[in-house]
Amino acid sequence: MMVIDKVTDLKKYVKQERFSAAKAGRELSVGFVPTMGFLHEGHASLLKQAREHNDLVVLSIFVNPIQFGPNEDLDRYPRDEKRDLALAEREGVDVVFLPSVQEMYPQPTKTKIAVSELTDELCGASRPGHFDGVTTVVGKLLHMVSPDKAYFGLKDAQQVAVIRQMVDDLNFDVEIVPCPIVRESDGLALSSRNVYLKEEERKQALILSTSLREAGDRIKQSDSVTLAEIRESLTRNIKSQPLAVIDYVDILSFPSLTQVHEDAQMRDLDGEILIALAVKFGTTRLIDNILLNPKGVVTHV
Amino acid sequence: MMVIDKVTDLKKYVKQERFSAAKAGRELSVGFVPTMGFLHEGHASLLKQAREHNDLVVLSIFVNPIQFGPNEDLDRYPRDEKRDLALAEREGVDVVFLPSVQEMYPQPTKTKIAVSELTDELCGASRPGHFDGVTTVVGKLLHMVSPDKAYFGLKDAQQVAVIRQMVDDLNFDVEIVPCPIVRESDGLALSSRNVYLKEEERKQALILSTSLREAGDRIKQSDSVTLAEIRESLTRNIKSQPLAVIDYVDILSFPSLTQVHEDAQMRDLDGEILIALAVKFGTTRLIDNILLNPKGVVTHV
Repeated sequence: MMVIDKVTDLKKYVKQERFSAAKAGRELSVGFVPTMGFLHEGHASLLKQAREHNDLVVLSIFVNPIQFGPNEDLDRYPRDEKRDLALAEREGVDVVFLPSVQEMYPQPTKTKIAVSELTDELCGASRPGHFDGVTTVVGKLLHMVSPDKAYFGLKDAQQVAVIRQMVDDLNFDVEIVPCPIVRESDGLALSSRNVYLKEEERKQALILSTSLREAGDRIKQSDSVTLAEIRESLTRNIKSQPLAVIDYVDILSFPSLTQVHEDAQMRDLDGEILIALAVKFGTTRLIDNILLNPKGVVTHV
Repeated sequence: MMVIDKVTDLKKYVKQERFSAAKAGRELSVGFVPTMGFLHEGHASLLKQAREHNDLVVLSIFVNPIQFGPNEDLDRYPRDEKRDLALAEREGVDVVFLPSVQEMYPQPTKTKIAVSELTDELCGASRPGHFDGVTTVVGKLLHMVSPDKAYFGLKDAQQVAVIRQMVDDLNFDVEIVPCPIVRESDGLALSSRNVYLKEEERKQALILSTSLREAGDRIKQSDSVTLAEIRESLTRNIKSQPLAVIDYVDILSFPSLTQVHEDAQMRDLDGEILIALAVKFGTTRLIDNILLNPKGVVTHV
């Protein structure tokens, strides 16, 4: 496994590998997993998929300052390079790209990639500028790695939708592969931020996955239940935990992230439906979601 | 010469050519000239450079609606596909990419690439949103062609600066090659829009190149002349033509496009200086410029 910290070295390496493969008559397929590090089994599941389907697997670890708002957790975002490299090694990664902030932004970027509309809802509403930071850094990384496939976790379902929109609109030559949420055995969705949770917060945070699962079950049992009813019971459930402070509980069509009429019943709906929530426990903001197909079957939990 | 109108065909073709060359042990170099068609000898000079320095030359012809403002000349922008293809053939182009608007924008783009600061001045001030349209379409085209080099004319000096900023900030894997302005024998800078000019407008429009040349000469003769004096005499010269309506006459550092103090004398300046103007004759808006190096030598006319 190679660790690279310079953009030019990374570009050169991938290019050289492609060239050598082509010289031997093979088309190299490159799989890319962009992360902010502090890797967990969710990231590992992305790396496993990338490993299975590609000749070369590139992992990037970069805590991207421009996707954090002024009052967010950039400074305390958890890091553990040594453990990350061990996990990468274990998952058979070929190249870890580990750039400094200076290397990624030698000067403050004057150029931004921005996706409109899809970024107005959910985390986009609570975190202004966040998605411009995400699309800009992902655009940069895609130019550096030029992968055939890039893997993203569905815990950030909005991020998946936004990145796909960017890739389609700007004709990036890459396939975006969304991967299912990975959970602890008790249901908590894996997140690098879970490490912030105090014991009691951790316990109460289980309400997120429990109430989402309940919502999914209720939809499976009755296709006449309305979205308003689902949203209301989700909200009530979460509020039963005294430490939970709701940022949003929202139901949108996926991947367009457009509003669905609150009186709609599940049987009236086409395409996928995203039930997504963001809830603070103490200073820690957690997100979780489920994706449902029109007939109420849970497609990703 | 191949004419391609589908994005997937273009991507596939360039990829296949790269792969075949690599298989034979050669690294293919791809030169790209993006245009809006109605080609003239300015475009031909870009194609000549691309031909000289690359194995494969790709020309795109696309009148990009999203870089035109609501009251601009999108509908009457001149087109002559047959003549364009003949010129491309003459210049030894390998691939002409000639997409429809529907092919480039199957749905209205929700994603924009935007460069700040450099787009506040000059044409960016007169044409709000124009450069977002330019950077977005150039980003798309770069993803489709993935060239090693892309060629842009310095008549749109601000465009060159903005595209370079975008390429640097977003780590596009391409070299931007700026090419000198090509002029008619009487000095008028070549432009597809020159065809709009009525006879008397065409005659009076010569004041642009004449007064820019005079400004260059004056700077060469005296390094104590101030930028304010240069700007003032340029403005006075242009106003001597009754049909000329000035949009801007501006002097900026290049390529940062930052303001230079008006009292500065040429000998005090570092780096390149851009003297740029936009002037309307009837309904036709023309631009022209010269680039000067710190010691007053004209680097590109």
